[in-house]
Amino acid sequence: MNHKAAIPNAFTLTNLLLGILSIVYTMDQNYRMSAIMILLAAILDGMDGKVARKLDVASPFGKELDSLSDLVSFGVAPAILIYAAQLNEPYGIIGLTVAILFALCGAIRLARFNILNITTHFLGIPITVAGPLMALFSLAGDHLPDLFFPVAMLLLAGLMVSNLKVPKF
Amino acid sequence: MNHKAAIPNAFTLTNLLLGILSIVYTMDQNYRMSAIMILLAAILDGMDGKVARKLDVASPFGKELDSLSDLVSFGVAPAILIYAAQLNEPYGIIGLTVAILFALCGAIRLARFNILNITTHFLGIPITVAGPLMALFSLAGDHLPDLFFPVAMLLLAGLMVSNLKVPKF
Repeated sequence: MNHKAAIPNAFTLTNLLLGILSIVYTMDQNYRMSAIMILLAAILDGMDGKVARKLDVASPFGKELDSLSDLVSFGVAPAILIYAAQLNEPYGIIGLTVAILFALCGAIRLARFNILNITTHFLGIPITVAGPLMALFSLAGDHLPDLFFPVAMLLLAGLMVSNLKVPKF
Repeated sequence: MNHKAAIPNAFTLTNLLLGILSIVYTMDQNYRMSAIMILLAAILDGMDGKVARKLDVASPFGKELDSLSDLVSFGVAPAILIYAAQLNEPYGIIGLTVAILFALCGAIRLARFNILNITTHFLGIPITVAGPLMALFSLAGDHLPDLFFPVAMLLLAGLMVSNLKVPKF
């Protein structure tokens, strides 16, 4: 790996770092900071691919690392956050099931898209959209009804594994 | 995807499910169950590839899904468990840094191995060995000195990204 190639990968690893910090903040019941970590990860995730292409150092290694980081920051971290902050009370085990389903559908979405190699559009809503959306909803949590969270999470989970064509920007 | 191909993927998704449950148990401070989830995930992870090859349904999709699940169950879940159970007290932010470094090295290990396509041996200790080892250490936590955990975790992190040739069994 040359030095220039390390730059986008450093962005991607920071994305993963922020995803893990989000989980740590959720453990400390600091749900606001947990959501902010996910949103910061989303900003970095939007930059690594652009930087890699601009520097002409896009690589299969970078792509793999990106998928791995995306699952943690936009699948697992939001699932843990929304479960702890919004679903555990009042939904208990059903809330946990919904949260885990969201992360599993995110993993399926990532694995499927990686092997399809479609470049013109996305198939199903990207996990990089669904995860940050759930983090935004969590920040607005007090103003939303209880039922909003399981419904939104199931809907986004379904849309990630759907065959919906989503335009690339 | 045919019906037979769904069998190993169900094993892989259960591996991911157990990784997420491990994080949830750590949040509940049930560190014993958290470690057991990681060890159960390791058993399932040993089975999915074998089942896929036996049924002759090994696929790029299955391989991608396997890597994604491995990072959560054997990188992130052990990092969160060891940080909460062994490193937060007495090491604080330094303990958190060690735990996150372990997960980041695990991600690099997975991304690197996936693009190398070596089939005769492993390069660096697999994350599927390092993660379950940390879970085993955690179960024996009370009998080990405090300093054991950051040292073992840094050592395994380094070995994952090393060029050590590890034979396949």
